[in-house]
Amino acid sequence: MTDHVTPDQIDAVLAHVDAGLDSSLERLYALLRIKSISTDPAFKAECQQAADWIVGELKTIGFDAAAHATEGHPVVWARGPEQTGAHVLFYAHYDVQPVDPLNLWHSDPFEPVLKTDAQGRKIIVARGASDDKGQMMTFIEACRAWQAVTGSLPVKISLMLEGEEESGGKNLPPFMEAHKAQLGAADIALVCDTDMWDRQTPSITTMLRGMVGEEIEITCANKDLHSGMFGNAARNPNQLLAEIIASLRAPDGSVTLEGFYDDVAEVSPEIKAQWASLGFDEAAYMGEAGLSIPAGEANRSLLEMLWARPTCEINGMSGGYTGDGFKTVIPAKASAKISFRLVSGMDPDKIRAAFRSHVQAMIPADCSVRFTSHGGAPAITVPSDGTHLQQALNGLSSEWGKPAVITGSGGSIPVAGDFKRILGLDTLLIGFAQIDDAIHSPNEKYDLASYHRGIRSWVRVLAAFAG
Amino acid sequence: MTDHVTPDQIDAVLAHVDAGLDSSLERLYALLRIKSISTDPAFKAECQQAADWIVGELKTIGFDAAAHATEGHPVVWARGPEQTGAHVLFYAHYDVQPVDPLNLWHSDPFEPVLKTDAQGRKIIVARGASDDKGQMMTFIEACRAWQAVTGSLPVKISLMLEGEEESGGKNLPPFMEAHKAQLGAADIALVCDTDMWDRQTPSITTMLRGMVGEEIEITCANKDLHSGMFGNAARNPNQLLAEIIASLRAPDGSVTLEGFYDDVAEVSPEIKAQWASLGFDEAAYMGEAGLSIPAGEANRSLLEMLWARPTCEINGMSGGYTGDGFKTVIPAKASAKISFRLVSGMDPDKIRAAFRSHVQAMIPADCSVRFTSHGGAPAITVPSDGTHLQQALNGLSSEWGKPAVITGSGGSIPVAGDFKRILGLDTLLIGFAQIDDAIHSPNEKYDLASYHRGIRSWVRVLAAFAG
Repeated sequence: MTDHVTPDQIDAVLAHVDAGLDSSLERLYALLRIKSISTDPAFKAECQQAADWIVGELKTIGFDAAAHATEGHPVVWARGPEQTGAHVLFYAHYDVQPVDPLNLWHSDPFEPVLKTDAQGRKIIVARGASDDKGQMMTFIEACRAWQAVTGSLPVKISLMLEGEEESGGKNLPPFMEAHKAQLGAADIALVCDTDMWDRQTPSITTMLRGMVGEEIEITCANKDLHSGMFGNAARNPNQLLAEIIASLRAPDGSVTLEGFYDDVAEVSPEIKAQWASLGFDEAAYMGEAGLSIPAGEANRSLLEMLWARPTCEINGMSGGYTGDGFKTVIPAKASAKISFRLVSGMDPDKIRAAFRSHVQAMIPADCSVRFTSHGGAPAITVPSDGTHLQQALNGLSSEWGKPAVITGSGGSIPVAGDFKRILGLDTLLIGFAQIDDAIHSPNEKYDLASYHRGIRSWVRVLAAFAG
Repeated sequence: MTDHVTPDQIDAVLAHVDAGLDSSLERLYALLRIKSISTDPAFKAECQQAADWIVGELKTIGFDAAAHATEGHPVVWARGPEQTGAHVLFYAHYDVQPVDPLNLWHSDPFEPVLKTDAQGRKIIVARGASDDKGQMMTFIEACRAWQAVTGSLPVKISLMLEGEEESGGKNLPPFMEAHKAQLGAADIALVCDTDMWDRQTPSITTMLRGMVGEEIEITCANKDLHSGMFGNAARNPNQLLAEIIASLRAPDGSVTLEGFYDDVAEVSPEIKAQWASLGFDEAAYMGEAGLSIPAGEANRSLLEMLWARPTCEINGMSGGYTGDGFKTVIPAKASAKISFRLVSGMDPDKIRAAFRSHVQAMIPADCSVRFTSHGGAPAITVPSDGTHLQQALNGLSSEWGKPAVITGSGGSIPVAGDFKRILGLDTLLIGFAQIDDAIHSPNEKYDLASYHRGIRSWVRVLAAFAG
């Protein structure tokens, strides 16, 4: 095959996808029936079974594929035929979340069914339908269609499919390190694990916030004390912790750590204009959480706060007696789990150091604090002028009949950081999930349209990469 | 018997106490062997048994005594023969704390033994030895000695002995209400449930802090949120709660509620001088808790902070994920249990209202707070110029050969408030426990000297009341 594809070829491949949708669905169902719950050791064999099933599928469409053992569940690594031109490395994950509470499911989570929802939309209901087996299969089925119609693939394709995304993902970075040269030979990484902007608008996420996770435990007295005997005398670690936490945000909503915003760039007018064009409904977004007043920095748009501004969140805190009733204790200890979401330019180590020094300075001489790191990763930004980004946007736009949009995400996808750090690759996050897919929850679903047009989208994006 | 007692009579009664100490101890042991753990329903029969045992003892020394059923454990009420002159109402409790962790006890908690401690002191080791069966028996044995030697009691004595002090004490106030006229006919209440100032110095506690208990639950979002998706957007209730808690204390350690100190009187120079003469060791007191820097208002002595200044303590707080590891959640709710210790003059209702209004003012329009009261009681102060106080001080001083001291307590003893509120009675808190008695803990003990000289002290105090 050449490194160019013709419009006729694309049309033929798309027609093949349309005609073969039912058998595509059967293959997805076969994968969804495998209970690959990675976090539960009881399902270890099913994780292996899912990996093996995928390897089998990939072999039928011309990939050199194998399930590589790790200390946890296998990594599926598949390499397509050599091609001139682009080389893409596709990532998705075949493991799924546990299904409890099972009683809230309306059908067996591992017996996929096609239903019609209240809006008349066809949906595929099963654990993993959206996160991430359905998304993974959009790509594999696109490859299958190219292979079936043209006998080959439009670009060189490698796949690296993880079985531990829902359970910590500890074994993937070492795998990447071990196969750095071959994996890193790709030009761009593709991750299919994200949402569309809305049901009509495809999107590519190019900004992901990074993270620093910290836990602090403050110790004051050497034992729990009676508040009658020691109230006013003994430092109360709950009070001290509250003062520390309160001090992390200024009244204007900004984070007070020294140098926190030093490396944060303002969003360019070009990006701001693009975001403005998205028609993001702030009130609806806040309303989804039952809220109406954004809590972050004053005078910034909500999208900017979420995608382009760092945050400090108290994910958990506890100290003293928290059971039923009342106990007049002054506890010895209090603790909190605190995370910082970082944006492009911020150094996790520098932020962690600024946090620790801020806290330490507030600890009285007769008290102490213990810090525990819960990891850190920098933010990810894909240059908005890159060739692959433009090609992928073009491919998506041609499928959906409207311009694909570039979005940020307030969340963090660690594998994108690993691609950059270990393999030196930028990542394009392209997914077809919807916000209401109920991932991680009972009755997870994937729109049939997400599946069908997701496959078609990859057909076009791969063609676009072929130039 | 007359309303006067002679020095010879007192000497004879004291000699009787000394000579009968072994049989006094046997009676205490008999009571200590009864497992009257009030909080555990499994020991209901034992609580009844303890009440009945005490009733039997009191009948043998001339009291009209009965165990009165309540919705919980019985109240023992005993009335001595009519006398001219003073009428005292004695309170103690016959129930005890649970004994776990049992493996930390060096002997069976319900098989009292006389041991010699590391300082060569004789100690009675058993659950309840100090709190409060031993203390209770000092009074009963003093009555027994008066009865044995003189055939009567020096003053009119009523006893009201509770079986639920360690489990909420809910049924005592209704009992007091029901028998208000007769119980309230006493001139003064005596409570034997407190410590000596030190092993050489008896004390009467005349100031007890009151308390207001509040619980607040703050709700922001309508569900737990992902901190990537909502960090900066959604108000974090942990952050909000921390800001509220931090706002309760000013940098100088004072409590910031509006009007908090309005009704707080400065300690009189006379009382300050008396406290100064106590030789209180601030560093040792703080050192007991492993601390060195008092946390309360700047420029006040520690005793003043503890006895005569109100406090605000965060007894518990929690919100979000507090288990192992890390979860990037923005919780929907956060809550805290907060108590205020009040001093004389402060109105619990006013303080509660000030607190609620302070908190409410900090809640953003799209969030809410729910308040739960955990009770309240004003502080207790016994007028320092009262006749009974002087008589009791004189009685104690004559026994111990040095002036008895007047102390405050940072804690709250609700029954003293009930005596005032329901019966209109002032309370003298006179006890012989030591700070190291390990009440509520394994290996609870009562010094043999506390028991012996406690009995002798009551002999003298009762004589002093007789004038």
